[in-house]
Amino acid sequence: MRDLPLVPKPMSATADFERDLLADIPLARAMQLSVRGYDGDELVLAAPLAPNVNDKGCAFGGSLGSLLTLAGWGLIVLHLGERECDVYVQDSQMRYLAPVWQDFAAHARLADDESWADFDAMLDTRGRARLRVHCRVPLPDAADACTLEARFVAIARR
Amino acid sequence: MRDLPLVPKPMSATADFERDLLADIPLARAMQLSVRGYDGDELVLAAPLAPNVNDKGCAFGGSLGSLLTLAGWGLIVLHLGERECDVYVQDSQMRYLAPVWQDFAAHARLADDESWADFDAMLDTRGRARLRVHCRVPLPDAADACTLEARFVAIARR
Repeated sequence: MRDLPLVPKPMSATADFERDLLADIPLARAMQLSVRGYDGDELVLAAPLAPNVNDKGCAFGGSLGSLLTLAGWGLIVLHLGERECDVYVQDSQMRYLAPVWQDFAAHARLADDESWADFDAMLDTRGRARLRVHCRVPLPDAADACTLEARFVAIARR
Repeated sequence: MRDLPLVPKPMSATADFERDLLADIPLARAMQLSVRGYDGDELVLAAPLAPNVNDKGCAFGGSLGSLLTLAGWGLIVLHLGERECDVYVQDSQMRYLAPVWQDFAAHARLADDESWADFDAMLDTRGRARLRVHCRVPLPDAADACTLEARFVAIARR
């Protein structure tokens, strides 16, 4: 019987994703972003309030928008996995519905009329595919504090 | 003859605005934001590339969105001056047109069909007024790297 495994536990894809995000994007570090969960359909990124406040003491709109956009981008990056692609945001619509006075999390899912199967098929045949995601920051009572609809493009690396 | 003025030079409104922004919003400090110019019609906020890069080495979309949104918000805040109001962003549409590989600046102006006179009159009579702004980050060749249309509301403090 041993207390420690003989080999290091392999990093999960989400742990790799979080590590790369924090290593590559200084603003993600400044926001103290973390991956809270990922189940293949939804990615949840979290951030504490303190480094993300505005002049009023609630969450800064730029932090909310950044977390929402990164959640949408990460949803696609994690789906692509080992596939060699670059993923870019093309446009987004954001709605600010209520102020956020506590630590917050951005939840990203595919937009209602999108499918991973269509996206994958398009990427296979054309080497490039677009996808719209729906992202939200819920309040403690589950109502939306803000929402983001964003369109991304994935481009296979040659 | 003296080399120094007898009284300290008063801080300008834009210097006050920059100081408050950096004091109140940690992410503005992380972005190393500065006010480049303001003439009453246009506000220009600047940020260096290094603290605002993404995984590809160009400007992070969250930094671009934050700077654009702050430029729009600041345009209204600076117009209001000493007037006691809170200004909130309500919604925005962002387009990412080209990557940004150098230090960048966000330019904010009123949207084409908006007027300060209407905004001021509405604020006087209702204590609340909405306004849409058009913001852009130009590339060195003057084409837009990204644009943001955002709607704000100003609410007079009671």
